[in-house]
Amino acid sequence: MMPQLGLLPRRACAALLSQLLRRAACNHAVGYHSQIVEAVLTSQLKPYQKKPNFIKIPKGTRDLSPKQMVVREKILDMVISCFKRHGGKGLDTPAFELKEMLTEKYNEQSGLMYDLEDQGGELLSLRYDLTVPFARYLAMNKLKKMKRYQVGKVWRRESPSIVQGRYREFYQCDFDIAGQFDPMIPDAECLRIIYEILSGLQLGDFLIKISWKDVRHEMVAEKGLAPEVADRIGDYVQHHGGVSLVEHMLQDPRLSQNKQALEGLGSLKLLSEYLTLFAIMEKISFDLSLVRGLDYYTGVIYEAVLLQTPAQAGEDPLNVGSVAAGGRYDELVAIFDPNGHRVPCVGLSIGIERIFHIVEQRMKTSGKKVRTTETQVFVATPQRNFLRERLKLIAELWDAGIKAEMLYKNNPKLLPQLQYCEKRGIPLVVIIGEEEQKEGVIKLRSVATREEEAIKREHLVTEIQKRLSQS
Amino acid sequence: MMPQLGLLPRRACAALLSQLLRRAACNHAVGYHSQIVEAVLTSQLKPYQKKPNFIKIPKGTRDLSPKQMVVREKILDMVISCFKRHGGKGLDTPAFELKEMLTEKYNEQSGLMYDLEDQGGELLSLRYDLTVPFARYLAMNKLKKMKRYQVGKVWRRESPSIVQGRYREFYQCDFDIAGQFDPMIPDAECLRIIYEILSGLQLGDFLIKISWKDVRHEMVAEKGLAPEVADRIGDYVQHHGGVSLVEHMLQDPRLSQNKQALEGLGSLKLLSEYLTLFAIMEKISFDLSLVRGLDYYTGVIYEAVLLQTPAQAGEDPLNVGSVAAGGRYDELVAIFDPNGHRVPCVGLSIGIERIFHIVEQRMKTSGKKVRTTETQVFVATPQRNFLRERLKLIAELWDAGIKAEMLYKNNPKLLPQLQYCEKRGIPLVVIIGEEEQKEGVIKLRSVATREEEAIKREHLVTEIQKRLSQS
Repeated sequence: MMPQLGLLPRRACAALLSQLLRRAACNHAVGYHSQIVEAVLTSQLKPYQKKPNFIKIPKGTRDLSPKQMVVREKILDMVISCFKRHGGKGLDTPAFELKEMLTEKYNEQSGLMYDLEDQGGELLSLRYDLTVPFARYLAMNKLKKMKRYQVGKVWRRESPSIVQGRYREFYQCDFDIAGQFDPMIPDAECLRIIYEILSGLQLGDFLIKISWKDVRHEMVAEKGLAPEVADRIGDYVQHHGGVSLVEHMLQDPRLSQNKQALEGLGSLKLLSEYLTLFAIMEKISFDLSLVRGLDYYTGVIYEAVLLQTPAQAGEDPLNVGSVAAGGRYDELVAIFDPNGHRVPCVGLSIGIERIFHIVEQRMKTSGKKVRTTETQVFVATPQRNFLRERLKLIAELWDAGIKAEMLYKNNPKLLPQLQYCEKRGIPLVVIIGEEEQKEGVIKLRSVATREEEAIKREHLVTEIQKRLSQS
Repeated sequence: MMPQLGLLPRRACAALLSQLLRRAACNHAVGYHSQIVEAVLTSQLKPYQKKPNFIKIPKGTRDLSPKQMVVREKILDMVISCFKRHGGKGLDTPAFELKEMLTEKYNEQSGLMYDLEDQGGELLSLRYDLTVPFARYLAMNKLKKMKRYQVGKVWRRESPSIVQGRYREFYQCDFDIAGQFDPMIPDAECLRIIYEILSGLQLGDFLIKISWKDVRHEMVAEKGLAPEVADRIGDYVQHHGGVSLVEHMLQDPRLSQNKQALEGLGSLKLLSEYLTLFAIMEKISFDLSLVRGLDYYTGVIYEAVLLQTPAQAGEDPLNVGSVAAGGRYDELVAIFDPNGHRVPCVGLSIGIERIFHIVEQRMKTSGKKVRTTETQVFVATPQRNFLRERLKLIAELWDAGIKAEMLYKNNPKLLPQLQYCEKRGIPLVVIIGEEEQKEGVIKLRSVATREEEAIKREHLVTEIQKRLSQS
């Protein structure tokens, strides 16, 4: 009975197998093994010989169409603009890292990493997030402080779900502040950034939930504090800034004896003061039941969710989920540094894919038309044999920085040219033909109103620029 | 004697080996094999157990520092701006494709692809360029026409050379026009785009060399035309637009009998007329000795090089090389389409990494300072206990869209705050302290001139915006 082999990754592996098998001395073994060798070699070669019957892209990935690219660009511009508003420096790291750089840091996530094939060199894996590469960058460059943003793709071999908008390749937008600073100031700025981005994207009402890693667990599971008391502590932090939280906590001996819980709650209280000065407390909720999946967090943790309005009730469940998250992780850089030098960090990641999905859905529902090009002027002619005039004219427009197109036809008819403009939302047409040539003018036509005006050739660029600046 | 095993990629492979080996019936085989099993399993586990002694990134890759990111952003903005000026639509494809989608198309390049490890699913490889993914996209979506640009990373397992600026991970900026159109118009536009980008980047003088795939080979090697005659044909195309090229060619019977050469030369003549109308002929050279490495080209091919000036003679050889290239490839999409529907394409790729390298080098030489942040205003205080006022003030600036920073210190001294601004090139400081608070003003200080002005709190944002717009 032949064992299930599947597709073995390397010809060398097959070669090794056959090499080992040929050394086996038994006839029975040889006979059995040669079937295996054949199966191995055949399965190894199959994918390289077959012409694809149909065209596919890898499971869990997608192309972004021009329409999706326009949406993405707008959203990313806005996110990066916010990162820059807060003094972030840009950084880019490679798509793959040495596997050993990544494996230790992720623990249970490492099973979901994409590994590169061992092709005789270093063992590599595609980056799983942007946080571990950042910690590696800090340690490698011996940096003690840095405020950086990074926007890039990451890859995870999770079970994809298009309904849930979960892909294997997706963008992350991260902002992190590394360095030893006075408590809670950078942490508060990270929350302010999440607030600015979510407000600016106008996605509707949202909530940023905040907690302190393990504090609830400490209080409830470890120290036996009643869960309802633990939950109320969160309320006290949020609503009773004036009342000494410590007094409330000291009333419960189990809590006052828990040093970590006290520290966490004290920090959350300080944070809430700063968030009040940042004028964002209305969107904040201290939710001590919050847990985050990644285990390198060491202090404050937060997660932002959109709140579904009645109008959106018909939208898919994707909308009720995390759109941003982050927290403090003080020990990650030290794992990389051979001397164990500690660089405390706090940061955030914008759930940009979920946001794209929501914005795309809403655009579909609203039926609002999205232009996929930014073309401002179309160069047209009603007659035959005006190709050369169109080429000369369009180059003059490009020289002036005007975004212009023309049909790649020697002798196009006028109607298809005008339809081209209407379909793409191009606002202006310049028309050159026999009449115009005789008079030394160009017709400048508004696609929307269909009004035409004869403009002297030497004034054309100025007139176009004037009209474009007015619209 | 133990065979050389190296690091085998998969635990499953090790498991299979041990499974097969255990089935071997011979004692001799078993004894020998168990050593192999042990070696396999040990080497398999080694990399995952060892804590990294030092921190590395993969061979042939690099991080981009904040300074490099600023340079990159400027250059990419300019390139994309040009693509949009010509009506290009944006597109994004996944970092990896099914190996079978890529392998057939690259022939000799396929040995340089990064394969992903076979982890039980599809066989994947990192994309090697942006052209084959584009052809796959067109075929997959059954598109007959598209004018698209794509900016993204690609990966090649070439021998890296930092001196030559050759990395294994690098950006490409592609613009391609797919579709059946009247001859040479889209081809001319691609050359115009290369011209606009290289002129706009102000890299110095450049030349765009153009030829027709295989035409020189056809003329010289196949048909025995004297090489010096072949070279002169290029001159005729370029300089003697008025003289009938066909007459010259017909004078040589070997050339006039070569249908492909005639066709290629006829097309190049038409192209040169269009390039004259596009006013770029001064940068064009018809160089029939030009060859391009990729074998999917089917017609016009071109390559742009920077011309070294005496001033640049001291710069490294990297400067004398290709900074853009492309050509026509009419049969690539048909390879993907099961029905073989043909979509002719022509396109260009900007050698953005080489351009980054040149611009970075020149910036180093010029000693010009590059800001790594865009911060406009710094919020400072000369006294202790003004943290809360600074937090409140900075949030007001962020609300107005002003890019602002402050130190993450409860009680910073004034001098380090001012030094922070000078180091980063932040132009303005707002100072709040006891004096200012008493008078209800904020001090607005110019970092460059050190002049200070007291501004009423309610006028602060307006005054800042006025000063920023004037600078």
